[in-house]
Amino acid sequence: MAEYVSSGGEFNRDTNYITTRITADGRDGYPVEPGRYRLIVARACPWANRAIIVRRLLGLEDALSIGFCGPTHDERSWTFDLDPGGVDPVLKIPRLRDAYLARFPDYSKGITVPAIVDVPTGQVVTNDFAQITLDFSTEWTAYHRDGAPDLYPKALRAEIDEVAQRIYTEVNNGVYRCGFAGSQEAYDKAYDRLFDALDWLTERLADRRYLVGDTITEADVRLFTTLVRFDPVYHGHFKCNRNKLSEMPVLWAYARDLFQTPGFGDTVDFVQIKQHYYIVHTDINPTRIVPKGPDLSGWLTPHGREALGGRPFGDGTPPGPPREGERVPAGHSAG
Amino acid sequence: MAEYVSSGGEFNRDTNYITTRITADGRDGYPVEPGRYRLIVARACPWANRAIIVRRLLGLEDALSIGFCGPTHDERSWTFDLDPGGVDPVLKIPRLRDAYLARFPDYSKGITVPAIVDVPTGQVVTNDFAQITLDFSTEWTAYHRDGAPDLYPKALRAEIDEVAQRIYTEVNNGVYRCGFAGSQEAYDKAYDRLFDALDWLTERLADRRYLVGDTITEADVRLFTTLVRFDPVYHGHFKCNRNKLSEMPVLWAYARDLFQTPGFGDTVDFVQIKQHYYIVHTDINPTRIVPKGPDLSGWLTPHGREALGGRPFGDGTPPGPPREGERVPAGHSAG
Repeated sequence: MAEYVSSGGEFNRDTNYITTRITADGRDGYPVEPGRYRLIVARACPWANRAIIVRRLLGLEDALSIGFCGPTHDERSWTFDLDPGGVDPVLKIPRLRDAYLARFPDYSKGITVPAIVDVPTGQVVTNDFAQITLDFSTEWTAYHRDGAPDLYPKALRAEIDEVAQRIYTEVNNGVYRCGFAGSQEAYDKAYDRLFDALDWLTERLADRRYLVGDTITEADVRLFTTLVRFDPVYHGHFKCNRNKLSEMPVLWAYARDLFQTPGFGDTVDFVQIKQHYYIVHTDINPTRIVPKGPDLSGWLTPHGREALGGRPFGDGTPPGPPREGERVPAGHSAG
Repeated sequence: MAEYVSSGGEFNRDTNYITTRITADGRDGYPVEPGRYRLIVARACPWANRAIIVRRLLGLEDALSIGFCGPTHDERSWTFDLDPGGVDPVLKIPRLRDAYLARFPDYSKGITVPAIVDVPTGQVVTNDFAQITLDFSTEWTAYHRDGAPDLYPKALRAEIDEVAQRIYTEVNNGVYRCGFAGSQEAYDKAYDRLFDALDWLTERLADRRYLVGDTITEADVRLFTTLVRFDPVYHGHFKCNRNKLSEMPVLWAYARDLFQTPGFGDTVDFVQIKQHYYIVHTDINPTRIVPKGPDLSGWLTPHGREALGGRPFGDGTPPGPPREGERVPAGHSAG
C-alpha cells in the first residue's frame, strides 16, 4: 500500500496535475464536444465529488458521460471494480491507470480522480480537479441545461477565488494535514490551523447563507465536499476532533442546507466514503476496520437557513432527480 | 509492544487476577492495617480510576497511601516514570512488575493496575480490581472518614451486582471489544452490543439520578470511569462512534453530574488518559499521535440532574479537596 504518513514531517500534497484543458475554442487540442469525453470519478473522493456535483447542477449529463470507480484501490490505481466484469463499460479498461498510460506511457505521478478521458483515443485529458469544475462552468456553457445556475459569476470571481484558495489550503487540504502528520508537532500545528479556519468560516457564514454573494457558487461546492466527510471520517480517522461538524451549529446548518439542496446530498455515498479512507490508509488504520457510526439521521433535519435569505440557484432552477444509473443506493445515504 | 488486536477474533480480556484479599479478619494473611499497604494506580486506567475514586470518597488517604504510575508503559510493565528518579518513593522500585515478581518470581500474567502492595515485604497482594473497591467499602470500615457514604449498602447489593455485571460486560469491557476487534464482523457485533447497552442505560437514567437507589453507589463509580473516557478516547480510537457521549443527553448529564461531584472529576487526568491509549496501542494507532481534541469545556456546564432528587452521599457528606500531592494538574483537567 502507499504510504501516506512520512515520519517527522508535514503532509505535502503532490499538486503536479495534467493541466491540459478542454475548452470551447479547443486551444489545447481538446474542444468541448458532447459525447466525446468521459468523466471518471469515485464517489468516495472529495475532489471528485466536486465534479459530480457541478456536472449535475449544470445539467451536463447528456454532454459528458460519467464512470464510477470503486471506493478502494490498490497501490497503483483506482479500479472499475463496481462495474460488471470489473471493466468500465465505455472505456473498456479495468483500471483508470490504463487511460493515463495510454497518453503518457511512462506516467509516474499519482493516478487520481476526477479525470476526464477522451473516449475515441482512450487517453486521459486532464486530472486537474480545480480547473475541471471551473471549465464546466465557463467552457461547457453551450451544453448547460435550461435553468443552470451560474456557479462562477464574473463579477464575483475574485472573491470566489480568494475564499476558495483559503478553503483549499486550510480546510480541504487541512484535514489531510492533520491525518497524515508525521509527528506530534506537525499534527498539533495542523489541528490549530484547521480549527482556526473553521472558526473563520463560522463567523463568515453566521449571517450569510452562502460563502460569496447570495447564491450557491463554486466556493460552496468546494467547502461542502469536505464538511460532508467531516464526522464520518476526518473527525476520528484524521483526528480532527475538537468538535464534530454536528457540534458547530453554524457550519452544521450550512452543510445541511446544501445537503438538502438537489445536486449536493444526492451525490454523497457515506458507505463508500468510509470504506475508502478506512481501508486504503493502512498506515493509520492497520486493521482496516470501518466504523459503523456516526448516526447520520441529522442530515435531513430542518436547518433554518432560509431565514438568512439568499437565492440558492439565483435566476436558475434546481436540477431534477439524478439519472437512472447515477443514483446513490438508499442504504448508502443519510436518513 | 503488546498486541491488542488478534486477527479474526473477538477481544477477550484476561481475567485471571490475583484474588488474595485484604480483610478485616485477615483470613488471607493480609489484615486491614493502616499504613501497611500501598495502592498503585495509573490515572489513565479506567479500572484503577475506580479505586482512586472510592478511596477518596471513603477518606482512606491516611490509612492507605497511593503511588501513581505514568500513563504509558513498555511491553512488560507500568512504571514509576513520573516520580523523581523514576522510582516509587515508598516501594523504591522503578516498575510495578518488581512488586509482582517479589511475590511470584515466575509471574507471567499481565502486570495491571490497580494493585495493592504490602509495603514491608514489597510484595503485591492483589490486582483484583473488582474486589478491591468492594473491600474498601466493606472491610476497611474502621478507617473510613466521618461522613463517608455507603457505596455498597447491604439492602441494595443484589441490584448493584446485577447492574454492575451488565455494565462490566457490555460497557466497561464493551468499548475494548469494539477497539480490539480482529475482524469487521466482530467489530460490528461489538458496536451494536455497546450501543444497545448505552440505550438501556439512557432509559434507566432518564428519570432516576443514580443507577441504584437514590444515592451514589459502586455501580455509578463503575459506569463513570468508562463514560469519562468516551469522547476523548473510545469514540475515535476504539470506533465507538454512533454518537459522542455529549450527543446522548441523558448519559451526558448523568456523567457531568458525577464529574462535578467531589471525588469524581477531580480524579480525572484527560492528558494522561489520551496519552495512555494513543501511545500504548500501536497496533491501532501506529503513528502514536495523540489527538488535541475534544473540547472538554462542556464537562463543567450545568446538568440539571438535581431536579430528579437523590441524595448524592446519602446520610454522609462529600469529601474535602484532594490531598497535596494527589491533585490532577490544572491543565490536565476539564474547563
